[in-house]
Amino acid sequence: MSRNTIFLTCSIVLNLLLFHSWYFHGEWEQSWTKNATAEAEFVASISCSGHGRAFLDGLIVDGKHVCECNACYGGPHCSVFLPECIADADSGDPMFLEPFWLKHAASSTIVVPGWHRMSYEFNDDSLISKELDAQIRKLHAVTGNAVTDGRFIIFGVGATQLLHAAVHALSTTNHPSSPSRVVASTPYYPIYKEQTEFFNSEDYKFEGDTSLCNNNSGCQGNFIELVTSPNNPDGQLKKAVLQGPSAKTIHDFAYYWPHYTPIPALADENLMIFTLSKLTGHGGSRFGWAIIKDEAVHQRMLTYMNLSTYGVARETQLRVLKLLKVAVENEGKEMFNFGYQTMRNRWRKLSKTMSLSKRFSIQELETQFCSFSEEVRGATPAYAWLKCEREEDKDCNAVLHSVNITGRHGSLFGAESRFVRLSLVKSDDDFDLLLKRMGTLVSQENNNDGINKIMTHTDEFNEFIGNNKGQ
Amino acid sequence: MSRNTIFLTCSIVLNLLLFHSWYFHGEWEQSWTKNATAEAEFVASISCSGHGRAFLDGLIVDGKHVCECNACYGGPHCSVFLPECIADADSGDPMFLEPFWLKHAASSTIVVPGWHRMSYEFNDDSLISKELDAQIRKLHAVTGNAVTDGRFIIFGVGATQLLHAAVHALSTTNHPSSPSRVVASTPYYPIYKEQTEFFNSEDYKFEGDTSLCNNNSGCQGNFIELVTSPNNPDGQLKKAVLQGPSAKTIHDFAYYWPHYTPIPALADENLMIFTLSKLTGHGGSRFGWAIIKDEAVHQRMLTYMNLSTYGVARETQLRVLKLLKVAVENEGKEMFNFGYQTMRNRWRKLSKTMSLSKRFSIQELETQFCSFSEEVRGATPAYAWLKCEREEDKDCNAVLHSVNITGRHGSLFGAESRFVRLSLVKSDDDFDLLLKRMGTLVSQENNNDGINKIMTHTDEFNEFIGNNKGQ
Repeated sequence: MSRNTIFLTCSIVLNLLLFHSWYFHGEWEQSWTKNATAEAEFVASISCSGHGRAFLDGLIVDGKHVCECNACYGGPHCSVFLPECIADADSGDPMFLEPFWLKHAASSTIVVPGWHRMSYEFNDDSLISKELDAQIRKLHAVTGNAVTDGRFIIFGVGATQLLHAAVHALSTTNHPSSPSRVVASTPYYPIYKEQTEFFNSEDYKFEGDTSLCNNNSGCQGNFIELVTSPNNPDGQLKKAVLQGPSAKTIHDFAYYWPHYTPIPALADENLMIFTLSKLTGHGGSRFGWAIIKDEAVHQRMLTYMNLSTYGVARETQLRVLKLLKVAVENEGKEMFNFGYQTMRNRWRKLSKTMSLSKRFSIQELETQFCSFSEEVRGATPAYAWLKCEREEDKDCNAVLHSVNITGRHGSLFGAESRFVRLSLVKSDDDFDLLLKRMGTLVSQENNNDGINKIMTHTDEFNEFIGNNKGQ
Repeated sequence: MSRNTIFLTCSIVLNLLLFHSWYFHGEWEQSWTKNATAEAEFVASISCSGHGRAFLDGLIVDGKHVCECNACYGGPHCSVFLPECIADADSGDPMFLEPFWLKHAASSTIVVPGWHRMSYEFNDDSLISKELDAQIRKLHAVTGNAVTDGRFIIFGVGATQLLHAAVHALSTTNHPSSPSRVVASTPYYPIYKEQTEFFNSEDYKFEGDTSLCNNNSGCQGNFIELVTSPNNPDGQLKKAVLQGPSAKTIHDFAYYWPHYTPIPALADENLMIFTLSKLTGHGGSRFGWAIIKDEAVHQRMLTYMNLSTYGVARETQLRVLKLLKVAVENEGKEMFNFGYQTMRNRWRKLSKTMSLSKRFSIQELETQFCSFSEEVRGATPAYAWLKCEREEDKDCNAVLHSVNITGRHGSLFGAESRFVRLSLVKSDDDFDLLLKRMGTLVSQENNNDGINKIMTHTDEFNEFIGNNKGQ
């Protein structure tokens, strides 16, 4: 056999092998996931200059998905900065975590077949995925922020739904003459008031600040106290104020994660509410859960869920399961470190800017031992609780508007209007613009202080010459 | 050049081409969708004998996903029929559409990246995907069942949430002394009553049957009438009973699709509610929508959504968009034909069985022109509304229990207990077992009729001989 013939034979064998591989694992393998995969990969590959994103269900123009730009960016690829745009620090939209999920796309993506869990119920007639329930318990074990052993867990369409379900479950029923009195310590999350008033139940009424009951005369009746820790808006770790058999508590632990606070201890309250939004950043997924000690309260909350929405979407539960698996990878180190580092960097920059101001102040950040990170560290809350210190700056948000910043008005939290909540959890673009505008405001103040000093001298001068002018 | 050399050159070129194709489109292309795709394909490939299914978020035993069996099937691959099992016809779980989605897996699957739509809001600050809004309008245009031009559309976490949001939006506010009176025509969907009573608002009260207002003395105050068409439980096409300026209506059109009813006309009511569950069978996705004429009502419902759950999960909206694209393919012919044919076959079988019975009757099915299918055809409702005709069968569900059938008790619908609602929309396994057991019941009746006839003769005989015995 000639050398050429040997080469040819080898080459033909190789061709056959390659053809086999290509045929069975390559182009011709038209699996049922192929279309969806190709579409998702294509849309993900659209470039939006790092200031926006194209989405699968986004607008299609001329047959093409278009970029959805971050606030203050425009143009077909989001590359144009819009300088007159408002720095919107109102919403607590936790987009600061998006880069983490972009980096972990391979482990956090899900494929949902058209036939996935069509039924109203899971196989055990519940509305709750057992695997997700177990994953949530694992998450709390990893972070050490809440006891779950022997506790009931229920899911809700965001903490929003669970908060009202909890108020409902703890309220007195069949006592229309003495509805439960819902209270929270000022400053408090505005939804508590808005929700209770909007649904206008005979069973409970919002009554404002817990101090209502500090003087004993106001303490008649059954109370439901909403305790937010770390607090929204000011980031303080809080304890219930009211005690005794007629006081029931709901602990809103939306921010009790290592991103925002040292974890001083394992929480073990009667009714604790958590939300995916502030944990992984998926506000749009509308997923929260409650950890409940008492079986009767658990049953009442389940009934609420049944009659309000009949549970939480199955595709959401599937996605949350996947996200939480990534969150606890490597004992949670990766996601929580990313979250904490991002928030710490933002706080460092903001604190540096604010340290130059006398016109504005922000809350003090407490430092304590964090059992999760096993170190002493400072709080890095989701919001700056900004105060306008000057007597005349009664409406602090109006002051911010002068440099095109908007925050959330203090009065919404039951506080004075000289307070504003500034969100620090939005995208890098949002934070950078906020910081820049705050810098402008503070440097105006310092320039003005310079001018004021000149003015003061001028006044003295005027006084001096005025005296001479005989005014 | 020798012939061998030409062959060798060609073969090497082919080698290179095949290697290129394999490298860039085959095994080595490790895209970020790969893990999720492999997992989904693996789980989908698990065999559960056609009587169950393995799911991505299902139980994992010894590191393996296990089959979740349909009711009345067991064993590791769901191949074992459990003969003593109850035929559960209680729930309206529309699993009859699952085979359609299994067949259309390639076009109905979605891939959701970890970073997909994390934000609380869409880019236009709404909670609603514009693409999905447009797709819903297209769906109604294809089926010709509802007007959407110039109407507002909002999304809800299932019709469950929208029903209560609608009652809330139409109720009188700030009139605690005269709450709106919520009514429906008997037999009505039990949730109307349960929901209104459970949330116990000062603004509206459930008052039962619309006939309350047929005698004029009961007509004081503002009414909200819930009109279900086709009706749940009996499948009748309904119109509002109450008229006039103090009567507002909510039209629950959950079943106004060609699966269940001829579509006689384009509906154009003030407030119309639809749900994905009964349209595509995805009850677990918790998705519904309302079509609203009045802007103020739309605004009030939006506020309800904001304070109740802050909208509907983004992954659900993405999935629904995909499912509805498949639903309207080929002018809706495929999905609606599948749905209608399945329901028609079930009704034919059930009607044949019931025609042998005098003890039980089911509702008459109206025949009329369907503008969607462009033919005269009979109704094929989601439920059989079964009546026990014998005087002594006062509790009809208890009669069914004797042959291991359970339906939904007539009293829940505000009707007599001699009625039972039997669900015909569950899986083939469920329907087949229900039909078999109904067959048993009817054949018992006929056998018993035989026995009764013998008994009657025996009675006459006894009477005859009794007379002779002088009793």
